[in-house]
Amino acid sequence: MSSSTTDASLKTSAPKASAPAILTAAVITVSDSCARGERKDLSGPAVAEVLKEAGFRVVATQIVPDDSMQIQNALVHFAIEVRFIVTTGGTGIAARDVTPEATEAICDRLIDGIAERMRLEGAKKTSFAALSRGVCGVHDKSLILNLPGSPRGAVESLEVVLDLIPHALNLLEGHTEHK
Amino acid sequence: MSSSTTDASLKTSAPKASAPAILTAAVITVSDSCARGERKDLSGPAVAEVLKEAGFRVVATQIVPDDSMQIQNALVHFAIEVRFIVTTGGTGIAARDVTPEATEAICDRLIDGIAERMRLEGAKKTSFAALSRGVCGVHDKSLILNLPGSPRGAVESLEVVLDLIPHALNLLEGHTEHK
Amino acid sequence: MSSSTTDASLKTSAPKASAPAILTAAVITVSDSCARGERKDLSGPAVAEVLKEAGFRVVATQIVPDDSMQIQNALVHFAIEVRFIVTTGGTGIAARDVTPEATEAICDRLIDGIAERMRLEGAKKTSFAALSRGVCGVHDKSLILNLPGSPRGAVESLEVVLDLIPHALNLLEGHTEHK
Repeated sequence: MSSSTTDASLKTSAPKASAPAILTAAVITVSDSCARGERKDLSGPAVAEVLKEAGFRVVATQIVPDDSMQIQNALVHFAIEVRFIVTTGGTGIAARDVTPEATEAICDRLIDGIAERMRLEGAKKTSFAALSRGVCGVHDKSLILNLPGSPRGAVESLEVVLDLIPHALNLLEGHTEHK
Repeated sequence: MSSSTTDASLKTSAPKASAPAILTAAVITVSDSCARGERKDLSGPAVAEVLKEAGFRVVATQIVPDDSMQIQNALVHFAIEVRFIVTTGGTGIAARDVTPEATEAICDRLIDGIAERMRLEGAKKTSFAALSRGVCGVHDKSLILNLPGSPRGAVESLEVVLDLIPHALNLLEGHTEHK
Repeated sequence: MSSSTTDASLKTSAPKASAPAILTAAVITVSDSCARGERKDLSGPAVAEVLKEAGFRVVATQIVPDDSMQIQNALVHFAIEVRFIVTTGGTGIAARDVTPEATEAICDRLIDGIAERMRLEGAKKTSFAALSRGVCGVHDKSLILNLPGSPRGAVESLEVVLDLIPHALNLLEGHTEHK
């Protein structure tokens, strides 16, 4: 739950001095056809827009093909810069869908409950949500979230878990209470 | 969502010429007592019946004991012949229940959302559905689904995910749209 | 599903003669600050109280720091003595939260449906339940359940799965019907 003050300061790009701005995000579009320039990436910009409206500063976007090493490299690279990395695409069940495996490969831990909620809420709109294999995990202090490849599926999946993200980022920064 | 045309052609065993019939299935009953002939297998035939009614051609059935290697061998063998392999039995939490582990051992990837839906829907009938550990996974282009051992549990679990299967098989064949 | 007779006999500590009392439990509080004596452990006693009311004989409680090896040692040690081991704490997403990993490390198998139900029911009270990473697993014939660290979260999570535990313990003892 980002406070409105924080949202405002991020939206106007006010300098944050010493404190790291945790509401920073990057969006990775995973798609062979978009990477080859054969298709316009609609999902990445749609996801970035939702993030901005929620108070995130989206500092980077990138398109990578459905290649596990390239996905892993992009994730690890962005995790140095931002606290929240969202991918769109490659979460299906076909052989080329490798985003979940690439994400798991570089994550220290997974948060099953977030993926579970995306599928549960998604199932209210389409039963095919059960076939989405996207995961949510932690790499160092960054949270990584896999969204489906379609613009609508990506935005809807993001929206049903977005309220959890600022709290999760706080916990990853070490701001816990009952310890 | 198999079309009624497809259903009809499969039910009458019309020749499929060059196109592979993706609605082919095999049923494996996993049970020590059935394998020893001490108990009649009711679950396997019940599951096969549901598959036939849904338009699948059930080309093989087999009874194997609760032995991981025998389960794995049966799965890998049937995956050459059919696109959908259903197991019944061995999904509980006792030491002899090894079907999920055997399935995971030979799967390229798991589809958690399908197992999740079986438990969710099952919980509406009995809270013990939470103890079912059945998984759903992909081996090459074949989908494998673990069902509980009781005839009723097996049939009910299958029915709540059956609408997803033809679509999933299409995706495994490489028929994707938004890539 | 403990019978009232069993409850009574356990509550009055009546001798169980030859039959092993399967409704035996241990509670492990996982917390750095409690282990250092800086904070009073409220969750452990609250969980123990719920277990006693449900007919369990709580034979041991222990406080350990958020250290994977110490958690594993406590789990393996208690699994010799009791059939149900409950932990509270260390299930969050921060770096120090290692209870799920420690539990998985010593479990023969996991029961995803139980963790799933805790999150599902928990989500009805707070959306942050999705961030709880607690697992449920089997070590030998003992069931291990991870609960959140807050007294309220721990008690509520336990209560939503408590009806499954005696049945699960029976299955682990080898009392299965349809095999």
